[in-house]
Amino acid sequence: MHAACPIPIHQYPQVLLAHGGGGRLMHQLIETMLLATFQPDPDWQHDAASLTMAGNRLAFTTDSYVVTPLFFPGGDIGSLAVYGTVNDLAMAGARPHYLSLSFILEEGLPMETLWQVVQSIQAAMQQSHVQIVTGDTKVVDRGKGDGIFINTSGIGVLQHDGLIGPSSVQVGDVIILSGDVGRHGIAILSAREGLTFETTIKSDSAPLVKPVLELLQHWPIHCLRDLTRGGLASALNEIALAAHVNIELESIAIPVEEQVQGACEILGLDPLYIANEGRFVAFVPASVASDVWKCLQQYHSHAQIIGQVVDDQRALVTIKNAVGSQRILDFLSGEQLPRIC
Amino acid sequence: MHAACPIPIHQYPQVLLAHGGGGRLMHQLIETMLLATFQPDPDWQHDAASLTMAGNRLAFTTDSYVVTPLFFPGGDIGSLAVYGTVNDLAMAGARPHYLSLSFILEEGLPMETLWQVVQSIQAAMQQSHVQIVTGDTKVVDRGKGDGIFINTSGIGVLQHDGLIGPSSVQVGDVIILSGDVGRHGIAILSAREGLTFETTIKSDSAPLVKPVLELLQHWPIHCLRDLTRGGLASALNEIALAAHVNIELESIAIPVEEQVQGACEILGLDPLYIANEGRFVAFVPASVASDVWKCLQQYHSHAQIIGQVVDDQRALVTIKNAVGSQRILDFLSGEQLPRIC
Repeated sequence: MHAACPIPIHQYPQVLLAHGGGGRLMHQLIETMLLATFQPDPDWQHDAASLTMAGNRLAFTTDSYVVTPLFFPGGDIGSLAVYGTVNDLAMAGARPHYLSLSFILEEGLPMETLWQVVQSIQAAMQQSHVQIVTGDTKVVDRGKGDGIFINTSGIGVLQHDGLIGPSSVQVGDVIILSGDVGRHGIAILSAREGLTFETTIKSDSAPLVKPVLELLQHWPIHCLRDLTRGGLASALNEIALAAHVNIELESIAIPVEEQVQGACEILGLDPLYIANEGRFVAFVPASVASDVWKCLQQYHSHAQIIGQVVDDQRALVTIKNAVGSQRILDFLSGEQLPRIC
Repeated sequence: MHAACPIPIHQYPQVLLAHGGGGRLMHQLIETMLLATFQPDPDWQHDAASLTMAGNRLAFTTDSYVVTPLFFPGGDIGSLAVYGTVNDLAMAGARPHYLSLSFILEEGLPMETLWQVVQSIQAAMQQSHVQIVTGDTKVVDRGKGDGIFINTSGIGVLQHDGLIGPSSVQVGDVIILSGDVGRHGIAILSAREGLTFETTIKSDSAPLVKPVLELLQHWPIHCLRDLTRGGLASALNEIALAAHVNIELESIAIPVEEQVQGACEILGLDPLYIANEGRFVAFVPASVASDVWKCLQQYHSHAQIIGQVVDDQRALVTIKNAVGSQRILDFLSGEQLPRIC
């Protein structure tokens, strides 16, 4: 096979950090090189694939975790690798059952560090009610890795008959955010750069299975998405693009903790683009939005109705500020902070 | 949790390359740290986990690929990542269906290199009749990775009612090897070190699904194992240990190509410990051994009956040379060649 590379080589001769950052470049790489070559089911874009195997509807997902540093306020690479993957299954509307666990270790990694991560994985598994059933361990030479990389893949059983994803989003849907945004990225950045704020900002890293299963049991849910790489803004842009709709947000409704807002102002970052590891949005019919919101408030007091879906071919995300002026919330090219998951 | 690290820290304060090499140290790490902590089904030791989900018997497996160089005679990291994982499913007696694909790319990787690997993955998928259904792409900073690492996880449907694995091995079982050994490791080493031999030794990297499904259809198969890290010797040691039996081999029966044998002699390597990526052993009842052998010979003319299982508590692998003297074929501490898969 000698097909030409679908990424313009003169423009991008090499892979950039931004190709993994959750923004426009990553989107391009995935769309034009990977999806175009492998042609999977159109729902690949979503967090997990839906499979039918011998009559059962399963979800299957994979993620590699390369976060640095390995330990940060509120979490570490081990718990992140469990929560991230069970959350992807939950976002497909599945109850997580089984995980695989694969390590790429760097020669010279302190054995005690590996042991701490293994214990954190074990605690996170119990918290998420999943089992690790298969695994792999590779070691690369010193200087060819970065301590620990982890891949977890997961299998779950779908808890609904429909399709939860952008293609089910409808004009008029209301968007509910499950809690405040921006914690995870700021926690990572603080740990990485040795920044200290008045109080320690902790990552929001957590399993989302329980609230999602409760929503699925009671209400028709059109789309779910966790707000990882690229944050709230990128997740909503992906959905708008895939669903061919506009999304209108109210700035004032989006909860950002005062400490996080302060840190973002000092650092020149926008909390709407910062990765979270325990937050999601749900797209639901307007008729059930208030009930869904009340349900999510039991899990997190900052859960909020933040916007709605409107009919527009441009597939834009717009945000209205307190005085009513509207601006476009675009895709970023990369991510503000590399290696946050 | 503050449990003490189960690996003696004074002895192994850091992770060594050998902890990923398929020998004794890797076995120790997996047994005492990972299996003891996660306590999965006892069949984790096998290449893939067997799961029952809503009445269906599935196999689930994961592997990360860190081979260097990325391209070598007879293959590359892309095809290896497909064949390695479908082979693990086949070794559990499953027909592979779906794969996940996760990249960890190093910043600065030539885009053209990624594209070559992607095309190789696509060709290998078609060859193996599997679909990639979900994926992930991460990018790490320059100097924190090594070009491309790939994780593939796979789901298959078990094609038999029993359990294929060491616990089904019985005294009297005959061991059949599917072809000549040692090619893959020597091909990698030659590419890495710029060694040239009279003719190029090509990796045996290939999917094993077809012969395995044919065996499963016709005969009772007790155990299957592909001969990757640590080669034939390590695979048989693992099985002997898990099944609490001795394994007796005939040296003369084990096919090694003349070129591979010559390279091994020059390099001071033992072909029985060298990784293969397209060879496996089958443990079968003596009554069907001849039929199984004839079947495997249709796929590879060097398929051979190489030994048998005998009753012995010591769980040793022994090998008899041409003049009848016997020696123990022990576990190695590490692998002779790191990063061959």
